[in-house]
Amino acid sequence: MTNASICTIGDEILIGQIVDTNSSKISRALEDIGIKVTRMLSIGDDRREIIDNLENELRISGIVITTGGLGPTKDDITKAALAELSGSKGYVENATQLEIIHEILHARGLDVLDINKAQALVPDNCEVIPNRLGTAPIMVFRFDDDRFGHPATLYSLPGVPFEAEGALPDVIEDIKEHHSLTDIFHKCVMVSGLAESALSKLIESWEDSLPEDMHLAYLPNQLTGVRLRLSIYGGNKAEEERRIDERFSALEPILGDKIYSHSDDTLQNAIGTLLRGTGMTLSAAESCTGGMISSLITSVPGASEYYLGSVTSYAVSVKENVLNVPQEYVSRYGVVSAEVAGAMAEGVRKLTGSTYSVATTGLAGPGGDEMNPVGTVWIGVSGPNGTSTFRKVYKNDRKRNIERFTSAALDELRLFILKDLKKG
Amino acid sequence: MTNASICTIGDEILIGQIVDTNSSKISRALEDIGIKVTRMLSIGDDRREIIDNLENELRISGIVITTGGLGPTKDDITKAALAELSGSKGYVENATQLEIIHEILHARGLDVLDINKAQALVPDNCEVIPNRLGTAPIMVFRFDDDRFGHPATLYSLPGVPFEAEGALPDVIEDIKEHHSLTDIFHKCVMVSGLAESALSKLIESWEDSLPEDMHLAYLPNQLTGVRLRLSIYGGNKAEEERRIDERFSALEPILGDKIYSHSDDTLQNAIGTLLRGTGMTLSAAESCTGGMISSLITSVPGASEYYLGSVTSYAVSVKENVLNVPQEYVSRYGVVSAEVAGAMAEGVRKLTGSTYSVATTGLAGPGGDEMNPVGTVWIGVSGPNGTSTFRKVYKNDRKRNIERFTSAALDELRLFILKDLKKG
Repeated sequence: MTNASICTIGDEILIGQIVDTNSSKISRALEDIGIKVTRMLSIGDDRREIIDNLENELRISGIVITTGGLGPTKDDITKAALAELSGSKGYVENATQLEIIHEILHARGLDVLDINKAQALVPDNCEVIPNRLGTAPIMVFRFDDDRFGHPATLYSLPGVPFEAEGALPDVIEDIKEHHSLTDIFHKCVMVSGLAESALSKLIESWEDSLPEDMHLAYLPNQLTGVRLRLSIYGGNKAEEERRIDERFSALEPILGDKIYSHSDDTLQNAIGTLLRGTGMTLSAAESCTGGMISSLITSVPGASEYYLGSVTSYAVSVKENVLNVPQEYVSRYGVVSAEVAGAMAEGVRKLTGSTYSVATTGLAGPGGDEMNPVGTVWIGVSGPNGTSTFRKVYKNDRKRNIERFTSAALDELRLFILKDLKKG
Repeated sequence: MTNASICTIGDEILIGQIVDTNSSKISRALEDIGIKVTRMLSIGDDRREIIDNLENELRISGIVITTGGLGPTKDDITKAALAELSGSKGYVENATQLEIIHEILHARGLDVLDINKAQALVPDNCEVIPNRLGTAPIMVFRFDDDRFGHPATLYSLPGVPFEAEGALPDVIEDIKEHHSLTDIFHKCVMVSGLAESALSKLIESWEDSLPEDMHLAYLPNQLTGVRLRLSIYGGNKAEEERRIDERFSALEPILGDKIYSHSDDTLQNAIGTLLRGTGMTLSAAESCTGGMISSLITSVPGASEYYLGSVTSYAVSVKENVLNVPQEYVSRYGVVSAEVAGAMAEGVRKLTGSTYSVATTGLAGPGGDEMNPVGTVWIGVSGPNGTSTFRKVYKNDRKRNIERFTSAALDELRLFILKDLKKG
């Protein structure tokens, strides 16, 4: 199995100014083709540091991917360091990238200065993958056995996250072409409504019965639930995928509707998949989640086909006057109650004329009392066949609670729509 | 100047399952006390790898901070690796941590198993900083000159982000106590409404006039604008801070209200600061931002004092029926127009009875035409003295546009309220 190292170059990560999101995206893409990332490293914009550390990584790993340090200003020195490391004899101009540089700057109404043109210059011993989203090309350096004891390839990607992500498919193609990889076959299912530990207990015997060559991974995410992934190294694609499907089929009687997708997915997208093309619509009423449910639903491109909108009723007056929550409910049952959650869901459904609606009212923190400790949320969902409410209690952290409330509300909404669709 | 390395331990980061947010938080805390992080490393749960790599980091840096690998299950082996690395002769029980373990599990209604108790065991040659937020204690190993050629300290923190963050103040205190640090004095201002490059041009001559011993850093963030930070190494606290204040005062005539705070801050919090205690209230009407404005406003603890709520009017019908945007505006000027943005702001202000309101209508993408290319947003703000609208045009990426629209809307709202307060 080929190993890889990822190295981010740039002071902005070291001083904590930005969080490195490139490495995890690169790692996932590599893992999908059966390459294991064994090391991630962040170093500063220092030529000696860059050369020494990359030589070290190339000795350890057959594939080294760097991001960053390719900007036009003089503090970016990755290119010069790579030229020295690889023993380049000079720079050559890459015509394709130069054309892209002209296009990008022209579109922004800017002149092409010498400093910009210089970005199309690359060491004469590297191959270039054009960067269509930015001005710095992707450079590929190949080293034979003599240099590091094994064949090794170094890919230099830009540090800007959307440019790095955009370059990744081409880099992956190049790796598949030039490295003899063990085939790896992955499939996954998305599971909602269960913490990792509870899920692991529930599927223990299923997990124990997996054949030796099948590897199971739990990949939990606060907003999207747990992604369960089965992998097999080597074999025949059709046959191995059939074997994985068979195992996941055996999981369905255990987890039922808790499995919400058979690909890497989100709850808001799964809801979109249920509603798209049906003519049915959706709205939301949020208190403690403050707009996050609506924000996630609208993060799906094309959500306007089924999503009408929401009311964030942070103040009681908005609950009563806009959503028509009876004043009596608030005084008798309290703001955090099944009655108010249900009335909010019904209120926003009526207000917008949507087929379905979801509502939240709870205590993200700080505050709380014995009846409703911090972390308590009531969720309401409403549709043509009535209204249901659910209570959940989480823990102490405001930010995490808002996310948990949001995820739980999306999941209850999904199950509610699903129940109707099954009846229909 | 003392250098530091940060090392995250755990397969979940290497396989891209989670993004490492601990390192940037630790780095910022270290930088605040004048310690420079020169390397960040992520490695897997492998004993040999952990020992070899940490020895290497301890040779390079006087301070090494690790996170992760301290869980109760058998795949977490950081503690055993540290015992071996440090030449520990055995484990001892830490009474304080054992008590915390009992408290935490009791609060969750769980029994304290042997596997839990074992978390209170630490190598006999380390010092312990209790972890009040979780079960694994913070371990501190001190090495004298003989071992790595310089005095070195290794801090082992838990990997769970809120536990790591919670442990950080105690770790920083310990570092200050045991390492002779050069004093560092920082102050910062938050600047909104200007890209880094435009800001840099605007303040060029101010920047050029800074004294040699003052270091300026630009710390940009998509949602909160650019943080400008001035630092001085060494000197007298009162005197150096006075000198920095003086320089920032000279910046005020150049940037005016674009400076929104004199500490590390967010636009939503700056708006809260303007409104808190005045009795004035706020509401929002969102189309293209889909709930993100409301979500950010409510991320501020205590926002319920001034925030009444919002309407996400994704569908035209909600704009017309809930927000009372005249149908004629939509048909004559289009949904993405000054008229609709203004009417949305006025509509939600009337609906909720708030003092101020902010509204967005735009095209985050995909789609668009010549008049309103993707990336166009109209922002409306409304208050007791009338309504204003603003048009902004950004670029192509849906996710980034939603964030830019949100940030621009919060900033226009802030400036609008500020203008009223100055008049009043």
